[in-house]
Amino acid sequence: MHVHHDQFEVRTHGKGLCEITDQIESKIDKSGIQNGTVTVFVQHTSCSIVIMENADPTARRDLEEFFDRLVPEDTDYFTHDAEGNDDMPSHIRMVLTRTSETVPIVNGKMRLGTWQGIFLFEHRRASHRRKLFVTIMGE
Amino acid sequence: MHVHHDQFEVRTHGKGLCEITDQIESKIDKSGIQNGTVTVFVQHTSCSIVIMENADPTARRDLEEFFDRLVPEDTDYFTHDAEGNDDMPSHIRMVLTRTSETVPIVNGKMRLGTWQGIFLFEHRRASHRRKLFVTIMGE
Amino acid sequence: MHVHHDQFEVRTHGKGLCEITDQIESKIDKSGIQNGTVTVFVQHTSCSIVIMENADPTARRDLEEFFDRLVPEDTDYFTHDAEGNDDMPSHIRMVLTRTSETVPIVNGKMRLGTWQGIFLFEHRRASHRRKLFVTIMGE
Repeated sequence: MHVHHDQFEVRTHGKGLCEITDQIESKIDKSGIQNGTVTVFVQHTSCSIVIMENADPTARRDLEEFFDRLVPEDTDYFTHDAEGNDDMPSHIRMVLTRTSETVPIVNGKMRLGTWQGIFLFEHRRASHRRKLFVTIMGE
Repeated sequence: MHVHHDQFEVRTHGKGLCEITDQIESKIDKSGIQNGTVTVFVQHTSCSIVIMENADPTARRDLEEFFDRLVPEDTDYFTHDAEGNDDMPSHIRMVLTRTSETVPIVNGKMRLGTWQGIFLFEHRRASHRRKLFVTIMGE
Repeated sequence: MHVHHDQFEVRTHGKGLCEITDQIESKIDKSGIQNGTVTVFVQHTSCSIVIMENADPTARRDLEEFFDRLVPEDTDYFTHDAEGNDDMPSHIRMVLTRTSETVPIVNGKMRLGTWQGIFLFEHRRASHRRKLFVTIMGE
């Protein structure tokens, strides 16, 4: 059994989903681990990691629209607004989704379903450089 | 330390929660692993894995009703509707919940609290055969 | 590779976020594990574990207010109310957040981002003693 840590950055360009499945696959290849799990962890509180439908971009746009309406930027009772009115909604959208995902690895590949992709979900309007940490455990 | 992978299917019959705690326990028994973790992962984007109150069925019905109202099927701005109007709500309900749960294993048993059960949460109206992947790591 | 289990309790005093990052760090120190993951799991269905912004208390208050409005205690269609009208909302708020978090450990420390803290999110109004289970796996 081994532990293999790795990291990478994703440059985001405003709110929305960025697929990172290929980057995770290449970290698993590099680790040499054949069976176990990979945990993808994002080191921020204003973006998320989610598994989502990876085939149809309209599904991602509808999801983004839903979150924009569920946690509106112009919510009048928010007081945490030093960084702008997209700051507090971004923390709430992160809490409503996930900071990490853990996926099984079998014979060196993630066991994702046919339509599953791993995405960084950016909640801020400005461009950001997001740090991701990948831990692969297994044999 | 060992890695033990297993899988099973659950046949769902429309929207709602199906308890799978016993199936997970039997996979742990079979693995022989006494101490570690189990990760239960569902290979789909229109259903979820959640831990939920397992004693009172009214709690599960209220939860289902809440999700029906939070992400209504007749939402007019959804454009991803090729598979029907329960398709896009199912992806959003999945993102708002979880694709996997990780639970500690101590002396061969999951350390769930008294009222915790593991459930597959089906978000589609039609019957589906859902694939679950179980990874048990430990010693 | 080793598995190290530990547990502790947190006394809550009504709804809100209680930071537990230091308690988790001390369990990791005690384990002696330098590289791997820690899974923090709460053995209840009416509170959550979340990673959240740890610097500004207004962010936590806004988050609590958002959840109070998203799942109101006076929701008229809830039927699971034997323990009071904060009971069913607490289960739903738990399902909308998380029962556990898994965080990478590198050189004996969690690899949290600068503004990330681990919190117990209490959803009940009364004081409770909450049981947390910590599983550290690695080498």
